Amino acid sequence: MSQINKETNYTLTSFNKVRIVMVNTTEPGNIGAAARAMKNMLLTELYLVSPSNYPSAVATARASGADDVLSSAKVCNTLEEALLGVHLVIGASARQRNIKWRQLDVIETCGEIQSTVSSKGQVVAVVFGTENSGLTNEELDLCSILMTIPGNPEYFSLNVASAIQVFAYQNFVSTVESKFDNSGGETANFEELNSFYNHLEQSLEHINYFDSKKPKSLLMRRLRRLFGRSNPEKEEVAILRGILNKINPYKP
Amino acid sequence: MSQINKETNYTLTSFNKVRIVMVNTTEPGNIGAAARAMKNMLLTELYLVSPSNYPSAVATARASGADDVLSSAKVCNTLEEALLGVHLVIGASARQRNIKWRQLDVIETCGEIQSTVSSKGQVVAVVFGTENSGLTNEELDLCSILMTIPGNPEYFSLNVASAIQVFAYQNFVSTVESKFDNSGGETANFEELNSFYNHLEQSLEHINYFDSKKPKSLLMRRLRRLFGRSNPEKEEVAILRGILNKINPYKP
Repeated sequence: MSQINKETNYTLTSFNKVRIVMVNTTEPGNIGAAARAMKNMLLTELYLVSPSNYPSAVATARASGADDVLSSAKVCNTLEEALLGVHLVIGASARQRNIKWRQLDVIETCGEIQSTVSSKGQVVAVVFGTENSGLTNEELDLCSILMTIPGNPEYFSLNVASAIQVFAYQNFVSTVESKFDNSGGETANFEELNSFYNHLEQSLEHINYFDSKKPKSLLMRRLRRLFGRSNPEKEEVAILRGILNKINPYKP
Repeated sequence: MSQINKETNYTLTSFNKVRIVMVNTTEPGNIGAAARAMKNMLLTELYLVSPSNYPSAVATARASGADDVLSSAKVCNTLEEALLGVHLVIGASARQRNIKWRQLDVIETCGEIQSTVSSKGQVVAVVFGTENSGLTNEELDLCSILMTIPGNPEYFSLNVASAIQVFAYQNFVSTVESKFDNSGGETANFEELNSFYNHLEQSLEHINYFDSKKPKSLLMRRLRRLFGRSNPEKEEVAILRGILNKINPYKP
């Protein structure tokens, strides 16, 4: 992939439409580390909601050459202020919460970001909460997607700058991959694919396909991967939906 | 993906065969942060070659709950000592070097690790150099793969703990994916695919899918194209056949 870097002229537009928002960060070192993590992965838009002890020499030291990202960071009083002009708000969460929010892992989230940023030219924000407790439910109420990062189910305690690093890396990889995938806008978008997968899942439940030897989450993931690899066109998804409708009409 | 975590019993064996080696680390905080990054992604084997100012309260503070990884870290005098028992040595490098080493990006490297660890049960080490200058050429001489992390071509200055975080995340994702991928990647052959398409056609006839607006020959051709593009594995074809069997048992 590194070789790809040199051969591709990135249109930086897709990276500068992805805003990182840090809410109530208490350790300024984490803000500096976040700026460094971002710049390494071509992100530049950093918003800080009521940071503690900031600006700070510690933040600048940890930024280590990403001072430009740090010095252009916007300090805001409220999360609402940091989200002005944003079309899609994503909240980062270490744990799954209740079903109120649409939950996607970081890879799926980056797919969603690609379709929002590249196809629609809109701005997205990924919001990271305070170090000790993450985002409050009130802050999550402003988000339409809750992004989780996979990992050790027994110990999930990513440092906030590390979480931003993982997201920024995955966003970079997903952006580069989607640049190669540019088959001309005929391909199904995220919503269409997701709705197809939901319909598929409902239909497989309807025919009692899943059982203990065929666990739903595993099988659905394999089917998503199989179909995902072929990067289906809109019309192909419509054909598949037509088949599913014969088995089981979709109930959203 | 996070949901999957809870439902899957990881065999930890593949994670504890991946050793992280930090060479001449000067900032003990980075060692603590590395331990935390590792534990979040199920890695436990940390080797430290001649670390400066270690053990250190700063390292313990940054480890934040990953004290077990930190306290079981092996301190070695030389890189050779840290590589005892290792079959595949991978050196992390911010930049591409000359052609002497086989260079893979982090995703490709994790694929290589999977085949070494899972199929052969061997131990791999991923070696990270000192903060300011990375691995020396002499240290790289002990490595058979040079791993690069993709990113900003104009500024590539990943903190060593951040690089370990990115690697550990990608290794986690690749391990989880390969667990589901357990078919050894063997793709279905022509007869298997053809038999699947025949079964699919019979099933679609069975549910009265085809009609004058959905002509059989056209639709079957499109479906063959869609599935053909994803180059299905044997096991994936078996999954699809299992679904079809629930709709309509195959009559050859």
